[in-house]
Amino acid sequence: MGNAEYDEYPNPSSMKGENRKKHQVEIPPPQPFLKSLKNTVKETLFPDDPLRQFKNQPPLKKLKLGVQYFFPIFEWAPRYTFDFFKSDLISGITIASLAIPQGISYAKLANLPPILGLYSSFVPALVYAVMGSSRDLAVGTVAVASLLIASMLGEEVNPTDNPTLYLHLALTATFFAGLFEAALGIFRLGFIVDFLSHSTIVGFMGGAATVVILQQLKGILGLDHFTQSTDIISVLRSVFTQTHEWRWQSAVLGFCFLFYLLAARFFSQKRPKFFWVSAMAPLLSVILATILVYFTHAENHGVQVIGELKKGLNPLSITDLSFGAPYLSIAIKTGIVTGVVSLAEGIAVGRSFAMYKNYNIDGNKEMIAFGMMNIVGSCTSCYLTTGPFSRSAVNFNAGCKTAVSNIVMALAVMVTLLVLTPLFHYTPLVVLSSIIVSAMLGLIDYNAAIHLWHVDKFDFLVCMSAYFGVVFASVEIGLVIAVALSLLRVLLYVARPKTLVLGNIPDSNIYRNVEQYPNTDTVGGVLILDLGAPIYFTNASYLRERISRWIDDEEDKLKSSGETLQYVILDMGAVGNIDTSGISMLEEVKRNLDRRDLKLVLANPGAEVMKKLNKSKFLETLGQEWIFLTVGEAVESCNYMLHSCKPKSGMDASFSNNV
Amino acid sequence: MGNAEYDEYPNPSSMKGENRKKHQVEIPPPQPFLKSLKNTVKETLFPDDPLRQFKNQPPLKKLKLGVQYFFPIFEWAPRYTFDFFKSDLISGITIASLAIPQGISYAKLANLPPILGLYSSFVPALVYAVMGSSRDLAVGTVAVASLLIASMLGEEVNPTDNPTLYLHLALTATFFAGLFEAALGIFRLGFIVDFLSHSTIVGFMGGAATVVILQQLKGILGLDHFTQSTDIISVLRSVFTQTHEWRWQSAVLGFCFLFYLLAARFFSQKRPKFFWVSAMAPLLSVILATILVYFTHAENHGVQVIGELKKGLNPLSITDLSFGAPYLSIAIKTGIVTGVVSLAEGIAVGRSFAMYKNYNIDGNKEMIAFGMMNIVGSCTSCYLTTGPFSRSAVNFNAGCKTAVSNIVMALAVMVTLLVLTPLFHYTPLVVLSSIIVSAMLGLIDYNAAIHLWHVDKFDFLVCMSAYFGVVFASVEIGLVIAVALSLLRVLLYVARPKTLVLGNIPDSNIYRNVEQYPNTDTVGGVLILDLGAPIYFTNASYLRERISRWIDDEEDKLKSSGETLQYVILDMGAVGNIDTSGISMLEEVKRNLDRRDLKLVLANPGAEVMKKLNKSKFLETLGQEWIFLTVGEAVESCNYMLHSCKPKSGMDASFSNNV
Repeated sequence: MGNAEYDEYPNPSSMKGENRKKHQVEIPPPQPFLKSLKNTVKETLFPDDPLRQFKNQPPLKKLKLGVQYFFPIFEWAPRYTFDFFKSDLISGITIASLAIPQGISYAKLANLPPILGLYSSFVPALVYAVMGSSRDLAVGTVAVASLLIASMLGEEVNPTDNPTLYLHLALTATFFAGLFEAALGIFRLGFIVDFLSHSTIVGFMGGAATVVILQQLKGILGLDHFTQSTDIISVLRSVFTQTHEWRWQSAVLGFCFLFYLLAARFFSQKRPKFFWVSAMAPLLSVILATILVYFTHAENHGVQVIGELKKGLNPLSITDLSFGAPYLSIAIKTGIVTGVVSLAEGIAVGRSFAMYKNYNIDGNKEMIAFGMMNIVGSCTSCYLTTGPFSRSAVNFNAGCKTAVSNIVMALAVMVTLLVLTPLFHYTPLVVLSSIIVSAMLGLIDYNAAIHLWHVDKFDFLVCMSAYFGVVFASVEIGLVIAVALSLLRVLLYVARPKTLVLGNIPDSNIYRNVEQYPNTDTVGGVLILDLGAPIYFTNASYLRERISRWIDDEEDKLKSSGETLQYVILDMGAVGNIDTSGISMLEEVKRNLDRRDLKLVLANPGAEVMKKLNKSKFLETLGQEWIFLTVGEAVESCNYMLHSCKPKSGMDASFSNNV
Repeated sequence: MGNAEYDEYPNPSSMKGENRKKHQVEIPPPQPFLKSLKNTVKETLFPDDPLRQFKNQPPLKKLKLGVQYFFPIFEWAPRYTFDFFKSDLISGITIASLAIPQGISYAKLANLPPILGLYSSFVPALVYAVMGSSRDLAVGTVAVASLLIASMLGEEVNPTDNPTLYLHLALTATFFAGLFEAALGIFRLGFIVDFLSHSTIVGFMGGAATVVILQQLKGILGLDHFTQSTDIISVLRSVFTQTHEWRWQSAVLGFCFLFYLLAARFFSQKRPKFFWVSAMAPLLSVILATILVYFTHAENHGVQVIGELKKGLNPLSITDLSFGAPYLSIAIKTGIVTGVVSLAEGIAVGRSFAMYKNYNIDGNKEMIAFGMMNIVGSCTSCYLTTGPFSRSAVNFNAGCKTAVSNIVMALAVMVTLLVLTPLFHYTPLVVLSSIIVSAMLGLIDYNAAIHLWHVDKFDFLVCMSAYFGVVFASVEIGLVIAVALSLLRVLLYVARPKTLVLGNIPDSNIYRNVEQYPNTDTVGGVLILDLGAPIYFTNASYLRERISRWIDDEEDKLKSSGETLQYVILDMGAVGNIDTSGISMLEEVKRNLDRRDLKLVLANPGAEVMKKLNKSKFLETLGQEWIFLTVGEAVESCNYMLHSCKPKSGMDASFSNNV
């Protein structure tokens, strides 16, 4: 490389050496404002490009595609075969056998009439079959949302004192949940669900499952009075202050069935071919327990039973929706919270099974389907439904092919509603509690928590906060804590990006993080910093301080060896964007370096950054000749100038390493 | 490069060619959890490394440094000279002449007794002189915070009906503002202030100034009744529905003084040496107006005057702080909001002047100083103070050297309080309004807004939202809108990072964004994507969809030319970190690519990413041999294998470009 003969080249652009400044950093051509706005909106709201298939199609075809887009049934129905139907029939009956006892159980959990649980497996399942795009999702109510309804509405209206008002509020909340879900889908805001991170969901679901299990102590122990709170301390106090009220008959029955259900699940897990052993177990338990109670008249000996269930299909409930004060706000709040939570579960479930079977699911379209399902549901006496994990897994294992399995389930439930409801009169509540407990135990995913601990401590912290927040405070508080922590993490990341010192990888032109690659060589007189993130107002002052600290450190280090720092190269490769605060920061850094007699050099700024640096005149202040395409070229020029302009002591030693 | 003879090398690690896979991507050695936690905490809370100077010092020296850290006066006082004092004396008297009328005006704006404005320029200025680290900041009350106090407290307590309660609440709010500010500083959470972006502050300040100016119409037109709201519509309605109440004497006086003040400022701006013309103008206006009213008895002709001002220094008010229900929450809320807003102004002012004069300011230390100033102030009948821009600019122009100018101002105000208060009896309110209007006109920084429009449209949007939010709704709503928009921008950035397709820059080993560098060559059979941001739960699903869309696009493009896509290289250079959701995303992408018979290749993953990929076993799934240090090396290997294993049609044309 260059030698000490050239003294008069302080500026890299004037260098005539053949290898210098080979590449120019381009400033992208200015884009009309509207075009760049359109691009941004498209990337933000339509990242999956749903209109792609409509391009270059005749109008009639476009209409057909549009109908198929909103009602996927028209897309797959023409290709439906009898083989498919056989599979769907089996899986549909299987999930119906699960849906009936689970529906009744979860409705009890939500403090709603048990019959609502059956209604909710009928109409929404039909709506989803027409509008949903998942082939494996089985529609139904879920425990966590049921619990949330009970705890949120229960704060305002006592379900035992005022059951009609409570029921109307639950239906209204379902309506708002549906409206909110559909709106998210229509306005393509599905990414809001992404803000519930995986670790949040693991912790929250585990906590909610724990809380639901604790609530079942009421049913299993046959207690009449129970706390309204859901936190572990209130529940355990409530349980242990009334030990004299425990009914041993109920407890024995409960634990027996729980043991049976868990054993069946364990067996099915070991031998996936026998999935039906586990899938049928809840219905079998209900039948067995009902027969047992009927013949032993256990209902007179402390075992509570469901009692009268009204025969007949879903009554219309559109007139029951109440939009008047003073309960409107609680209905909306409950609707939004339960809507988001159940949406997150439904979308995640649909996505997981689609991945297994290698087909695609459009999140926003699914949201519209969920929303319509709940809007229609709220008008036909159904409360909040989604795609529960347990039921969908059974559906998948039973070999379902399309959403027809949901139709089969709906028909089976319809028959139950029309004919079989009286049979549930003697079904003991305790067996429903056992079913819930056994389902919930599967939701406490301690393996996932252990995995989080190993891979990412902060994710583990988020997960545990959500768990303990739910268990010790309340479901809402746990959710708020978890979301807040997740967001805090994102904001902290944006506020404190990592800056790295780069060094030269021997015998190459490559510069990498000196911590990761300990065998890199530093370049004498040149400090190379990699700014690891876009520069925004949130991190501009941090970066300013951090850069000046790196320079201080470097000067301290060099002082001992008698060298001086001359150039500071900022690698902008990872700086995807910059805002006006960021540009001010760069201007300040430049002023600060000028004052210390150091030269600022930029390497590899991206298109957006170049555009803004150009518009704000920073490029002029800095001088375009101080911007290089790669760190390598920047170092080469700096070295050349160091060597040719100031051939000083101590420079040559480190120099020979880097050329 | 390689030729078609080698057919049996599907795996880059088995290639023996001399130039292949030169560099290994390192997995950093595992770090103990506590050590990495310590590092994170240090980077997050102590980016400026305040303990640096304490290192390797004897204990006595440490103590001295510690005292100097919290009380910077001990640091600079020993070096104080008589020359400094001369400068400080002049600037101190100058700012006192501004402080007295401004203090009285702003106290009126906050609906507090005018004398509080004088009190607030006495004690807090002394506290700041001892604890503050800025040499140019002049302490005093500010218009925006005064207005906020009036509007927030005014919602709960009417200042005319219940002046004592209102005063006590204002003092309590000041106490909480101080407590909050000091806590932010002590817990090193100063970065929270950074979340108020520059564009937010420009818009918010401009809006607040507009609102304050509108409020002055009351004083200038001499109206007795006026709306409690601050939005432009209520104010204009209030003004124009009582045109018969307008007092022309008052209006004429007001506009005359406003003209004088603006002319003085214009003159001083043109000739900075005559800064005192503008700085003295407010006091001169007050004196002139007072004399005018005294001799013309204009107070009997519709010109309202200040009236009786109590003589004497600040009375103690520690017993006036009220921490009881029902007003505690509003006091805390007002304290936090006004505390943050005034802190943002004070810190920004201190930083700007420090930058001019080339010294450093520690934001967290300043927060502690502001906090103490307000805590002590609230106990001595002062309301919220900070470092106002206008007064500090005058201080700076007057040539202040140290915080002694604040002491001089405090003493001047003390003399005023002890002796001169009766002189203000006949001061007309209208002149105070003129002083406020003239000060506020300087805060509407339309040039900054134009600059934002040119450089960054989104910043401009944030700025305008803040402005119109303040002007048309209320000061709080404007602030909330602006902060929410700023945060939304950050979150959107994190949720929608930019992915770029890279191409080869001719005759080099460099790969860059094809949009920015249109002369790049694509590499046949290989798609190179640059993931522009850390992969977190917020963007994991977006990135998954975006990557699969890039692949679809590329395959569509290649289909016409008969080529097939074989490799997808992800450039991870800008991926500073990854969480568990991000790792799941990569796993999904890998499965998806496997299914499509494509090979996933990673280039240049950083230390954090390698660590987590390793812990989560993704490295094993992918195969370490598919990770390269640079995109160039990855492309080289892919090309080699493409060429040697499948020497197909159409490949060679594009091939020759890239080697």
